[in-house]
Amino acid sequence: MQKSSLTTGLSSVLRGRDQLGQESAGIVTSNGACPPIYTAHKGMGLVSTAFPPEALLKLRYGNLGICHTRYSTTGISELQNCQPFVVDTLHGKIAVAHNGELVNAHALRKKVMRHGVGLSTSSDSELITQLLALTPPMEELDAPDWVARIKNLMSETPTSYSLLVMFKDVIYAVRDPYGNRPLCIGRLVPISKLHSPAAEEEDTEGWVVSSESCSFQSIGAKYYREVLPGEIVQISKHGIKSLSVVPRPEGDLPAFCIFEYVYFARPDSIFEGQMVYTVRQRCGRQLAIEAPTDADVVSTVPESATPAALGYAQQSRLPYIEVLCKNRYVGRTFIQPTTRLRQLGVAKKFGALTDNFAGKRVVLIDDSIVRGNTISPIIKLLKEAGATEVHIRVASPPIKFPCYMGINIPTKEELIANKPEFKDIAGYIGADSVQYLTVEGLLSAVQEGIASHQEKDKMISPSNKSSKRVGHCTACLTGKYPVELEW
Amino acid sequence: MQKSSLTTGLSSVLRGRDQLGQESAGIVTSNGACPPIYTAHKGMGLVSTAFPPEALLKLRYGNLGICHTRYSTTGISELQNCQPFVVDTLHGKIAVAHNGELVNAHALRKKVMRHGVGLSTSSDSELITQLLALTPPMEELDAPDWVARIKNLMSETPTSYSLLVMFKDVIYAVRDPYGNRPLCIGRLVPISKLHSPAAEEEDTEGWVVSSESCSFQSIGAKYYREVLPGEIVQISKHGIKSLSVVPRPEGDLPAFCIFEYVYFARPDSIFEGQMVYTVRQRCGRQLAIEAPTDADVVSTVPESATPAALGYAQQSRLPYIEVLCKNRYVGRTFIQPTTRLRQLGVAKKFGALTDNFAGKRVVLIDDSIVRGNTISPIIKLLKEAGATEVHIRVASPPIKFPCYMGINIPTKEELIANKPEFKDIAGYIGADSVQYLTVEGLLSAVQEGIASHQEKDKMISPSNKSSKRVGHCTACLTGKYPVELEW
Amino acid sequence: MQKSSLTTGLSSVLRGRDQLGQESAGIVTSNGACPPIYTAHKGMGLVSTAFPPEALLKLRYGNLGICHTRYSTTGISELQNCQPFVVDTLHGKIAVAHNGELVNAHALRKKVMRHGVGLSTSSDSELITQLLALTPPMEELDAPDWVARIKNLMSETPTSYSLLVMFKDVIYAVRDPYGNRPLCIGRLVPISKLHSPAAEEEDTEGWVVSSESCSFQSIGAKYYREVLPGEIVQISKHGIKSLSVVPRPEGDLPAFCIFEYVYFARPDSIFEGQMVYTVRQRCGRQLAIEAPTDADVVSTVPESATPAALGYAQQSRLPYIEVLCKNRYVGRTFIQPTTRLRQLGVAKKFGALTDNFAGKRVVLIDDSIVRGNTISPIIKLLKEAGATEVHIRVASPPIKFPCYMGINIPTKEELIANKPEFKDIAGYIGADSVQYLTVEGLLSAVQEGIASHQEKDKMISPSNKSSKRVGHCTACLTGKYPVELEW
Amino acid sequence: MQKSSLTTGLSSVLRGRDQLGQESAGIVTSNGACPPIYTAHKGMGLVSTAFPPEALLKLRYGNLGICHTRYSTTGISELQNCQPFVVDTLHGKIAVAHNGELVNAHALRKKVMRHGVGLSTSSDSELITQLLALTPPMEELDAPDWVARIKNLMSETPTSYSLLVMFKDVIYAVRDPYGNRPLCIGRLVPISKLHSPAAEEEDTEGWVVSSESCSFQSIGAKYYREVLPGEIVQISKHGIKSLSVVPRPEGDLPAFCIFEYVYFARPDSIFEGQMVYTVRQRCGRQLAIEAPTDADVVSTVPESATPAALGYAQQSRLPYIEVLCKNRYVGRTFIQPTTRLRQLGVAKKFGALTDNFAGKRVVLIDDSIVRGNTISPIIKLLKEAGATEVHIRVASPPIKFPCYMGINIPTKEELIANKPEFKDIAGYIGADSVQYLTVEGLLSAVQEGIASHQEKDKMISPSNKSSKRVGHCTACLTGKYPVELEW
Repeated sequence: MQKSSLTTGLSSVLRGRDQLGQESAGIVTSNGACPPIYTAHKGMGLVSTAFPPEALLKLRYGNLGICHTRYSTTGISELQNCQPFVVDTLHGKIAVAHNGELVNAHALRKKVMRHGVGLSTSSDSELITQLLALTPPMEELDAPDWVARIKNLMSETPTSYSLLVMFKDVIYAVRDPYGNRPLCIGRLVPISKLHSPAAEEEDTEGWVVSSESCSFQSIGAKYYREVLPGEIVQISKHGIKSLSVVPRPEGDLPAFCIFEYVYFARPDSIFEGQMVYTVRQRCGRQLAIEAPTDADVVSTVPESATPAALGYAQQSRLPYIEVLCKNRYVGRTFIQPTTRLRQLGVAKKFGALTDNFAGKRVVLIDDSIVRGNTISPIIKLLKEAGATEVHIRVASPPIKFPCYMGINIPTKEELIANKPEFKDIAGYIGADSVQYLTVEGLLSAVQEGIASHQEKDKMISPSNKSSKRVGHCTACLTGKYPVELEW
Repeated sequence: MQKSSLTTGLSSVLRGRDQLGQESAGIVTSNGACPPIYTAHKGMGLVSTAFPPEALLKLRYGNLGICHTRYSTTGISELQNCQPFVVDTLHGKIAVAHNGELVNAHALRKKVMRHGVGLSTSSDSELITQLLALTPPMEELDAPDWVARIKNLMSETPTSYSLLVMFKDVIYAVRDPYGNRPLCIGRLVPISKLHSPAAEEEDTEGWVVSSESCSFQSIGAKYYREVLPGEIVQISKHGIKSLSVVPRPEGDLPAFCIFEYVYFARPDSIFEGQMVYTVRQRCGRQLAIEAPTDADVVSTVPESATPAALGYAQQSRLPYIEVLCKNRYVGRTFIQPTTRLRQLGVAKKFGALTDNFAGKRVVLIDDSIVRGNTISPIIKLLKEAGATEVHIRVASPPIKFPCYMGINIPTKEELIANKPEFKDIAGYIGADSVQYLTVEGLLSAVQEGIASHQEKDKMISPSNKSSKRVGHCTACLTGKYPVELEW
Repeated sequence: MQKSSLTTGLSSVLRGRDQLGQESAGIVTSNGACPPIYTAHKGMGLVSTAFPPEALLKLRYGNLGICHTRYSTTGISELQNCQPFVVDTLHGKIAVAHNGELVNAHALRKKVMRHGVGLSTSSDSELITQLLALTPPMEELDAPDWVARIKNLMSETPTSYSLLVMFKDVIYAVRDPYGNRPLCIGRLVPISKLHSPAAEEEDTEGWVVSSESCSFQSIGAKYYREVLPGEIVQISKHGIKSLSVVPRPEGDLPAFCIFEYVYFARPDSIFEGQMVYTVRQRCGRQLAIEAPTDADVVSTVPESATPAALGYAQQSRLPYIEVLCKNRYVGRTFIQPTTRLRQLGVAKKFGALTDNFAGKRVVLIDDSIVRGNTISPIIKLLKEAGATEVHIRVASPPIKFPCYMGINIPTKEELIANKPEFKDIAGYIGADSVQYLTVEGLLSAVQEGIASHQEKDKMISPSNKSSKRVGHCTACLTGKYPVELEW
Repeated sequence: MQKSSLTTGLSSVLRGRDQLGQESAGIVTSNGACPPIYTAHKGMGLVSTAFPPEALLKLRYGNLGICHTRYSTTGISELQNCQPFVVDTLHGKIAVAHNGELVNAHALRKKVMRHGVGLSTSSDSELITQLLALTPPMEELDAPDWVARIKNLMSETPTSYSLLVMFKDVIYAVRDPYGNRPLCIGRLVPISKLHSPAAEEEDTEGWVVSSESCSFQSIGAKYYREVLPGEIVQISKHGIKSLSVVPRPEGDLPAFCIFEYVYFARPDSIFEGQMVYTVRQRCGRQLAIEAPTDADVVSTVPESATPAALGYAQQSRLPYIEVLCKNRYVGRTFIQPTTRLRQLGVAKKFGALTDNFAGKRVVLIDDSIVRGNTISPIIKLLKEAGATEVHIRVASPPIKFPCYMGINIPTKEELIANKPEFKDIAGYIGADSVQYLTVEGLLSAVQEGIASHQEKDKMISPSNKSSKRVGHCTACLTGKYPVELEW
């Protein structure tokens, strides 16, 4: 599974979501002058590799910029697919970074190509950029109304996209009407006031926008608020301004990706007013209620399942222990010259903390089971090291359906929940029992915290209240997609 | 001064013009199947760096492909500017590699952008690609007439371009009606027949097209003929076929770049039926006639001026000697940690072969003087090492005008021939005398060999004879551009 | 603080202690034939960088080998200092890898140099290798008694060293009489029996020796036993054999480095029959007894203090929570182009899990405080994020003295425990209170588990029982060095 | 064939002999203070690769230093074999760089190892360093007499070595009594006086020593004189001083390697008072006298044979032309993915300048024929391109014997002159005739210039005149080695 993320701001900001292996990164800055000077850099690999110091130096005169990091995908990862995508138009350069996947990308590509435009990459970012350039027709003499063009784009594709669109002296942060991908705003404040709750709005030194609020702390910014579903927020030297909220079709609920809570986001990120860690802990508590276990100890598959495991332990009043110790370097980089090493598998990645669980019945919490390949050898390892029983409790429901909105989930056939073996999943992976959180349990764990935070959040205007109605995309779990799919 | 070059063929062929520092290289291949599989690789640096073995491996299943190498320019050399440029259209992918510079690029960019197309690079290759996609309008159902589109493109821009345009199973080799940039065709023959004059046409195993014929030898191909000015040659599994010759405006002569003979081309390349080395040697002979010298020995600034120096020596009956020995590695890569080393200048690049010329009057032949920075310290070195007189004879006329057709010549102000010091150029560079070849002398040295070769060449058809009328672009020497410039 | 580690075996085994930043790695193998073929490779950086695939390929025909990894030190890290050190002698090559630091290295270097030997590195490994070659005098005709030479070396230097000495077909694993550095033996077993307690001694496919048992699992080996203090163990195709145990001076106790338990070792390693994780957990429990706190929650500075924090939580019956989330990539590789980013400090490395502790009194467990630079900004971060009180409890006593036995501890002046500010350490670092584990508490937590394991261990012979008497080096805490220091 | 070279001086000087592929380079500098600070850097690859800027920066505070570059050899090229070799002794560090090969290395290694010293590399440099440290015995209290130690070393090994030995504030430049390897001294002068014959001795800003005088020019130094066979020259802040000339056995002549003239040295280097280029030109003239040819044109295998070819042309009064054009990059770096490219061989490296020789009889001059693999395809290429006859004239005699003095000549079996095919060498390589220069001819061409220069050279003292008696090592041509070989 993979996804991408965005950052923008008035500083050369680089941030990647670090649980996942980064694949490429791009950054574009503008100095906001007239005519503006743009500088761009794209590279393959981690941010630190993709941006050698001399590349960053080139960027330092910019005072606004957008950046994109992309994670490993099954697709081809040529440098050309790197975002942000920048094109020259009759009215100057525009740069677009995009997180998500347009559900009607195929039809939109045809439309653009029928107009006689060749597309040089397979990325939605180029498609969006050419759509912005293309319609309505460009007039040579007058400056185009970029906001109208963005609204026009939003009328042609319902989801899924969080966008950063940069023109010479302005950035627009845009979230699709369903709010499927996250996007939030932070304020750069003086370092001295960084952690102080007393930092006033007038202390703001600049604005940043990011897929995940956890990146704000790394650059000395404070979380401000989310971009609302359908909202277009303008960022310029005059500050931020909410321009418009494009509505969803009557009756449709928001559809923020529930897997951001379950798996993707860093635990210290904030979505919908609540910390991801806390949601995961609640998932663990809910799991303990739905699937209690007669066991001696509770533990985690490090490190993503730890909040859920602690929640399960608290609710079940079983002691929380550690059973595995991560072998940091070896897992990623070890060269395997012999058959022996290939056969070793998971034993290269984890050390068993035998004394902690030998002779005991272990409840092992995992955040999700996708293919079932990873958990099976861990169970074997624990049993051989002396665990008398290993019960798997999964802090999310089984994944059964593909995602067409930006998350690269394996094909339906590869998902363990769609295989015949799933009927006896415990037997298949060698566990004494396996239980999953229900969809209802997950939704209640996620949505319980939203209600309580609603009133605290900074409201844009009363008319936007409807946008805040609660709803989440659970398509990969239920097959109910937020919009009709078009292919 | 810089330029770029093209290669295509039925084999994964890589060739750079090696006197110049390469900057980037790109290659795209197709397997010609339906639907075709394209593989592409682009990289910065020399061919050997830009194409690591694993990249070449990816390409090996292609049976047609185009390749482009680009030389150091004053412009920005982002990877994105790398050719060939590939885009997806309604009717499949097209790939374009381009050598030259469109004189009306600015107007054409405006035209494309007015249509609503964003241009992601500043390269003419992308511009050409989008023009091919754009006009006439694409119809979804029927395959477009690519040849008509190429002709349409040629009607919109007179020069300067040599193009390779690849569709799934066909490559078109195109030269502009003025023939400003070179382009020639070679036959891949069995290695055993490579150097044999008896290799028949039926021995052909494949076809290659290149900016310079010298690249053919490196891959085991025999020179076949030039693409004519204005000609469109089709290469496919059915062999090569001349489709059409787009004519020049009534009365215009061809305008092949004369600096290819003077400076750019590798000496073993063939243009207009004659070897570049031989032309350079004739320039040296002509120079000896126009500018004889009372001296003891003739020598060369290694290595590009050597054929002219040998020609001068033969004509003047003065002995040819070597005066400088090139310090191969140091010049390019030496790190200069101290002021001393920075001051050393040319002494790091050349060793003086003192004993050969001490106490003698030297005629030193150079191929061209652009800024006058290089020759001056060489003269100083020779004099300090014992030459009693140093007379500079330049085997081409003074460069006075910028080139807008693909050669990156310094600005008018930087050219020594436009500076006040030029009046006393000998005094300025420290020579005892300086003399240049005349434009007439250069033209006669170049064109003398063409007449004699005309009849030997493989004629396309009698109607094409007009295309073979002799004419060369001497814009950088005379300011007479082959077409009106539009900016 | 830094240290190095060793591995040997009958397989091309690479293992580093992965909590610490690796700096260089070396490996030497022999095919055991006569004359033997040696292959060696050394490189800077992580094992994966230091050993590119083609280097490992070269090694594959070896059937015995030794390897060394070295961690970042304050010293110069030229490649030449890389171990293993290999020299050619009259009787063939010998290779030595060394973990530790000879307390009388200075005097031994003088001795070697007085004999007329030039030393090409500052490493003890070269010194040991030359000492083995030097004394007693080499005779040309007969093979030398290498074991006698090793014993002779051991008589000249009391500590600190764990050694691997390889001759053509044999490896000697040697631990100094005080057992200051760890060294343990593992058995390679069929993968199928790896985790099975039923694996018999006859299943052994080869032997490996390592500084830390955690490396065994990564290569498919089972922990067998420690090399005893003073023991020489021979490994060859005939298996392993304990040759001799060189005694300590009458009355001296063993002096295994207590900081291996506190800080250096990976938690799943086994020393003296007990798992490091368990010892750390006991340290946490002991700390809760010695330094109870009136607080709401217990947490850890991730990740090394987690076992102690869990132990503290269990003993104190306070809930264990997570307060910090590690920002994996950024900390190590982020480029800091602006003052802002430099000022951010620890905020780049950790995200605060605010909701878990806002409004609460936190007991934060750390494993050790060396300079006091790291903990102070973490406390600030927690307080600003809403912790009402932060109490620091350190699971080891204050470090006050330098280590001369292989651990690169900062100078006395840099240690916070020796600074005037230490009197009010809580005020200095901004904590509400600070308390350390006592030396007695640490010793009891460490030694409690040894007694219970003593009888289970595989005894070498009754005469060796004395070697197993319990004792640890606490020099950095107490200033009591196991032997007199000579400088 | 390969060799190595030395440079030293009062500046951070890097110079390689650039016709040959460099393999590794090392540099060591000292600041001459007490105690001195040494800094060292060694690396694989070309000087520019081996010494990244940050490594050179480290060196800049040195004011004396020695450097070594090593060329591709058949041996193992581990970084450890990199020179200079530096060891710590009782009296401080010594650094040794060595060019040559000790004829009795095997016996000396045994001697050193019998003393109990382990040798960590196979290099003579380490051996020399340990011999200097070893004998006579080191006394702890008094400083050793390094010059006596150097003389002692010279008494133990007759040849072949040019040495640079650095102690804290002094460098000794040493040449073996036979003068087998070159070594010469240059003066650093103000850049303004670099090429002026008027530069006085008082203008000297520092001294440099190098294997080849051509390197002086690159760093702004003037050639001063050679180190004499057997001479020890001391370089310090007090200037240079000739300390002693160790004599050869009664009756032995000097034995400077004649292949330095024929092949190795850069043409602008000076040996024995004469420029290498001039010697090569004389060889060509001599060859024209010994082996005249009935032909139309004379040419060269570029570029090393050019001076001889020009000499041949002058003597024979045949016109000199160029027949081949070097394909600079491709030869070295081209990746050969297909059989076709592998078969192409020499055609990838050279372009035929067909028009220059088609229909003509060509005399092609080569400097030497070692294995006969290179010349054969060149002849084929020329004939296929139209040469009616190709006569090979070689400007040196056939190589028949191995060199044990530092030049890595192929084994006797591989030398074409020792193969049965040599009887009909012309037929074997496809030439119309083949003739070699005679040993007498070569010696006279070399020695003719020495006599005339003798009196001009700066004499050390009358007693040294004997050292200047003329003699050269022709062992590879005649089998007469200057000293008895010991293996």
